[in-house]
Amino acid sequence: MKKIFLFLVLPLCVQAQTKRLIDYVSPIIGTAKMGHTFPGATVPFGAVQLSPDTDTIPYAVNGKYNGEVYRYCAGYQYDDPTIVGFSHTHFSGTGHSDLGDLLIMPTVGKIQLNPGTADRPEDGYRSRYTHDKEIARANYYRVLLEDPNVLAEMTASARVGFHRYTFPKSNEAHLILDLKSGIYNYDNKNVWTVVRVANDSLLTGYMQSNGWARTRTIYFAIRFSKSFKNYGASFADKNQPYKGFWRKFDQTSNFPELAGRNMKMHFDFDTEEGEEVQLKVAISPVSMRNALANMDAEVPDWNFNEVRRKGEELWEAELQKIKVEMMSSDDYVNFYTAMYHAALMPTMYMDTNGEYKGLDQEVHRADGFTNYTSFSLWDTFRAFHPYLNLINPKRNADMVASMMAHYDQSVLHMLPIWSHYANDNWCMSGYHAVSVVADAIIKGIYTGDAEKALAACVSTANTRRYEGIGAYIDLGFVPDEVSATSVSNTLEYAYDDWCIAQLAKHLQKEELYNTFITRSEYWRNLFDTRIGFMRPKNAKGEFRKNFDQLETHGQGFIEGNTWNYSLYVPHNPQGLMELMGGKDSLGNYLDSLFTMHLPDKFFANTEDITREGIIGNYVHGNEPAHHVVYLHNLAGIPWKGQERIRLILRNQYHTGYDGLGGNDDCGQMSAWYLFSALGFYPVSPASVEYWIGSPLVKSAKVTLHNGKTFEIETINQREKHVYVKEVRLNGKVLDGYLLRHEDILAGGKLTFVMSGTPKKSGF
Amino acid sequence: MKKIFLFLVLPLCVQAQTKRLIDYVSPIIGTAKMGHTFPGATVPFGAVQLSPDTDTIPYAVNGKYNGEVYRYCAGYQYDDPTIVGFSHTHFSGTGHSDLGDLLIMPTVGKIQLNPGTADRPEDGYRSRYTHDKEIARANYYRVLLEDPNVLAEMTASARVGFHRYTFPKSNEAHLILDLKSGIYNYDNKNVWTVVRVANDSLLTGYMQSNGWARTRTIYFAIRFSKSFKNYGASFADKNQPYKGFWRKFDQTSNFPELAGRNMKMHFDFDTEEGEEVQLKVAISPVSMRNALANMDAEVPDWNFNEVRRKGEELWEAELQKIKVEMMSSDDYVNFYTAMYHAALMPTMYMDTNGEYKGLDQEVHRADGFTNYTSFSLWDTFRAFHPYLNLINPKRNADMVASMMAHYDQSVLHMLPIWSHYANDNWCMSGYHAVSVVADAIIKGIYTGDAEKALAACVSTANTRRYEGIGAYIDLGFVPDEVSATSVSNTLEYAYDDWCIAQLAKHLQKEELYNTFITRSEYWRNLFDTRIGFMRPKNAKGEFRKNFDQLETHGQGFIEGNTWNYSLYVPHNPQGLMELMGGKDSLGNYLDSLFTMHLPDKFFANTEDITREGIIGNYVHGNEPAHHVVYLHNLAGIPWKGQERIRLILRNQYHTGYDGLGGNDDCGQMSAWYLFSALGFYPVSPASVEYWIGSPLVKSAKVTLHNGKTFEIETINQREKHVYVKEVRLNGKVLDGYLLRHEDILAGGKLTFVMSGTPKKSGF
Repeated sequence: MKKIFLFLVLPLCVQAQTKRLIDYVSPIIGTAKMGHTFPGATVPFGAVQLSPDTDTIPYAVNGKYNGEVYRYCAGYQYDDPTIVGFSHTHFSGTGHSDLGDLLIMPTVGKIQLNPGTADRPEDGYRSRYTHDKEIARANYYRVLLEDPNVLAEMTASARVGFHRYTFPKSNEAHLILDLKSGIYNYDNKNVWTVVRVANDSLLTGYMQSNGWARTRTIYFAIRFSKSFKNYGASFADKNQPYKGFWRKFDQTSNFPELAGRNMKMHFDFDTEEGEEVQLKVAISPVSMRNALANMDAEVPDWNFNEVRRKGEELWEAELQKIKVEMMSSDDYVNFYTAMYHAALMPTMYMDTNGEYKGLDQEVHRADGFTNYTSFSLWDTFRAFHPYLNLINPKRNADMVASMMAHYDQSVLHMLPIWSHYANDNWCMSGYHAVSVVADAIIKGIYTGDAEKALAACVSTANTRRYEGIGAYIDLGFVPDEVSATSVSNTLEYAYDDWCIAQLAKHLQKEELYNTFITRSEYWRNLFDTRIGFMRPKNAKGEFRKNFDQLETHGQGFIEGNTWNYSLYVPHNPQGLMELMGGKDSLGNYLDSLFTMHLPDKFFANTEDITREGIIGNYVHGNEPAHHVVYLHNLAGIPWKGQERIRLILRNQYHTGYDGLGGNDDCGQMSAWYLFSALGFYPVSPASVEYWIGSPLVKSAKVTLHNGKTFEIETINQREKHVYVKEVRLNGKVLDGYLLRHEDILAGGKLTFVMSGTPKKSGF
Repeated sequence: MKKIFLFLVLPLCVQAQTKRLIDYVSPIIGTAKMGHTFPGATVPFGAVQLSPDTDTIPYAVNGKYNGEVYRYCAGYQYDDPTIVGFSHTHFSGTGHSDLGDLLIMPTVGKIQLNPGTADRPEDGYRSRYTHDKEIARANYYRVLLEDPNVLAEMTASARVGFHRYTFPKSNEAHLILDLKSGIYNYDNKNVWTVVRVANDSLLTGYMQSNGWARTRTIYFAIRFSKSFKNYGASFADKNQPYKGFWRKFDQTSNFPELAGRNMKMHFDFDTEEGEEVQLKVAISPVSMRNALANMDAEVPDWNFNEVRRKGEELWEAELQKIKVEMMSSDDYVNFYTAMYHAALMPTMYMDTNGEYKGLDQEVHRADGFTNYTSFSLWDTFRAFHPYLNLINPKRNADMVASMMAHYDQSVLHMLPIWSHYANDNWCMSGYHAVSVVADAIIKGIYTGDAEKALAACVSTANTRRYEGIGAYIDLGFVPDEVSATSVSNTLEYAYDDWCIAQLAKHLQKEELYNTFITRSEYWRNLFDTRIGFMRPKNAKGEFRKNFDQLETHGQGFIEGNTWNYSLYVPHNPQGLMELMGGKDSLGNYLDSLFTMHLPDKFFANTEDITREGIIGNYVHGNEPAHHVVYLHNLAGIPWKGQERIRLILRNQYHTGYDGLGGNDDCGQMSAWYLFSALGFYPVSPASVEYWIGSPLVKSAKVTLHNGKTFEIETINQREKHVYVKEVRLNGKVLDGYLLRHEDILAGGKLTFVMSGTPKKSGF
């Protein structure tokens, strides 16, 4: 007998006058296709992301990669018919993955410790669900699990996931804890698990894994609101001492001192009709003891609504930093959901007592900063960290401090590349931490030891052993034969070196400035003037013969073909333009890029984005060309950029579950939206300049950390008024379509006069 | 070209007048056959036991147990022709095993990361050696490794192993670090390994294993006296991020940030002829950081001889606690080697800063005590811990404190059964920690919270789920169908319960006393008066029909058949004797036990001992009958006991490498020797009485912790004067052949008048 729950369907399309900005947030956006966002509960930058996983398929079967796993980077795919369970850690918008730890699922009836399949959920603990019985809000998620007829609700504090399950009457109600389950679940991903059942409502433990993070341990404490009547475990441990001959203990049933691989547990209850069983799951990077202390500190009581409310307040405070007026109600949803998505990662990686696990696998105490982890720097250096510098400078300063701690703990003496949970997975090209460090110091945001930070940048940039850096230093480019992404690397190293040069200049280190400003021009070595594109070159100095300008893989690039990557000289676009042949050449190039017809086969070969993530041959769903649309200004055709910026804002960001055209990439896609919607963009972080585009907002008030307010107002803003007729800063016409960081910090007003007709002269 | 080293062969058969007692110590004793001792370097109760392993064969191949592995409980078998390497942790004298961590081996020539086989050492890194180029002393071991022509020398501090390798001239000299190697090496024993190469002469790391200890991690720091020119690693980690496509790093060569399973490393050097390369290997149960701190605290310099000397001083101080005169120079070797073997385990499990890992897998700080681990309590409660109470009470008090900490950390709320390295493997029958706890409190040695200790004993004894305790409480015995060792368990639980009763009495807890003194008589429920033996009984109360009195396995016993076990009522031998039919019956039983002919097949079926470990049907090589020979006193035939005690002392303990008739069992066999050689034995620990036997010493001076001296002197002591004519305490004839602990503590003199003819009257 199934009970029908009455759902209060909260309106997502709320009015502009609604007081709570969090009501605009729709975490379901981007949960279909390539968005790779998660719909679950979390607080801003919280360590816990408590979210449903709709499948937990293995990364590989018998050593063979399972392509389907890619769909589950964030655990959830909107189109899936079943929910496997609710796990506590999720990346937002990544294109490779990990996490999905500590999966919990309520069931009723026979104990089943395997998830079953989407086709036959009845063979396991998973359940069917429908979206009309699902609500995803900032720090609140709920869904009716149809098979057990259990209403599942989630909320979270920074380090504690709070579950509320409303059961039907049953003497076979269970909560399943699957410690083997995980995202990107390799054959031997689960390295070891320990569980200690302290009493009939508390357990502690840890789970070690070898996934994208090579050596990762998550410690936990789980408290139940109701005593379980019975519990049991299934696990793999061939070496249980004297298991056969000695009958010391039955370790599968009610045995409190468990250890092994691939542990799965069940906790059994008698429930009344409509009875709530609640769970608090606290995590720690350091110890079970700390996990329990985190729980006691953050969520001492059993008040679900209170935990939800506190998280909502945190979200509201984040969103209030930018108060906008938009042209449509959907725009509010897009804007504040973008703000939401740009406040999920990096995540706090530190206990309430300040302890965290360092890259060196030692326990450290964060002294004067909050330690963060999960730095997807190849993505986020572009707009995300500059965005934090604007509205969240304290957090970004702490992120730089976290990167510096990583550097201190690195025997490679490197800043993070793509780091998460006390590991570096060294994903993607470049060493973009230097961009974030330099930008934060130059803008006065990171106030730690700047000379040491510069030394860390230099050490990273001089790690000869790392992906062609040695050859890059010696030859002026990464040779084709040294790296499969030799062009991407060269271009990005050159930009990064420019960032180091800017920092050196800022700190008056002339010699270092000279070294790195020289290196920052190495992009020139791969520009083939004969074809007008960047092109792989071998160590002998010969450009690659067979070169496909539309293909990415195998052509020396990553996540962008040479059409997209050839413009990747954000720090010297003028120099690039000259090499290309001047303004007209650049203008023609941009026109071609945005309008050319790309044969279908290239869509299939372009990772991380949907068909819709591409405009012409411009790939917005990946990052390398994110600054490119602003280069229209340089080419003397800003009106074309304005058109295209507004086109991207409209084309690539929707309010639907499939509203993102590519991976959100830890907030970078959203940060692009936020800057562009406000009307400007940081083309080259570590510079203090923002390039003017075409705002989507009608107006905006940005509350700055220094107490001042920076306002954006528009005149004649309409859907079709995509052109900027004039820009004024505090009433004075802005020269060169450039806004400086200090202009913002000073407070004041930026006025855009919009128009339905392009302004084509004066450039 | 091989260089011949000149060995200084130190005389083992030294004179009585030698000033250093440590010169009598011969760690090679017991390294052949079943002794399971190790010959390497260690300090008293030190955390490091740096010792050669002569084979490291897998525990099981394709899941099938490999019987040969049993020979390698301590890593070393005297008859083996090759040494695989030198590892840092070893049990002494156990009959199951683990450890053998961090194996180091010097090689010359081609880099080989596999050990090779004893038949073909050239296929791996192992080497041939001969015993005439080997020396094993207290805190010093050396051997010439023939294949690389490297002289290997070892010494140790408590937490640091110090290696000195003298190489020939070579530009291919290597040190191999095999982190996969281990004792009792299961298929997946190595759970995870991390190595960080800080610079060209320092690495830190940790190795996790799942062996006899289910969840064990050893952290380490290794410092080289000479910079390595190159290093590399081989390891298993399928999940190395982007291993294929991305060529981020070559992780096999000179890569400092390693992690994976089954890690093996090589460190390469150019060496001159006779060049010494030294290594300091520090370990920690807590962290790499602590391991390094341990190294800095204990062995800051590169002075091998100084480390050796300090360890020798510690050993000398231990041995000086009992100064004996013996009848032969071999006797000195036996006596002081027994003292040596009785000062190896349990081992310190705590860093110099007081931190250790608890059973709960959390880091703890030992408050006011030294934390010890590796409690083989089934063996050591008998004579070893009482021996410590005599000459090492502070250490034993700390061991009790360590057991209490274990209890505090146990979600099972149990004292240790067989615990090592933050785990309990629950090996063997009984819960004998209670004996050690009670003995230490009743004798005034443990001065911690006695009531809490009693509560811990009661909690342990009431763990109904543990191996038949529930049924034992309900029925008065462990039923045959509940445990494969139901009789052993019942008898040992009954003795343990008597210990708890004694402690309760000591603390004036009358109700508890009554409960446990009642339980202490449950041994009666399994004595079959019809056959005069203990016998398995089913839950219905029926004795087992087919019962073999000579067989052990499958008959309800462990490590002793019913002939040996039926006398296991050490706390009420009088009651047992009455049930058996009185003095004559007991006397006849003992005569039969010591003289009967045991068919050969039973030797094959008796574990842990050699053929020589048995006298008649009396098994001295195992523990259950260790008190039995003293029961002759009770039977009114003390002279027969005296004869047999001297026979055992002569038969079971030799100076040869095969000088032990069975596993030394963490010092229990040696402690039996020491007590018996002094002329008395603790038949029932937790009682304050020692039973008089027949001393082997000519005289002895025991230095007590309270500053007093207890002397043993003999009159007419000769090899054939095995009979005691009279015993006097401080000149006064001793009644009933019983010595009390307080008599010893008071200081004074125990005089044995020896004779070649038995005294048969007066009993």
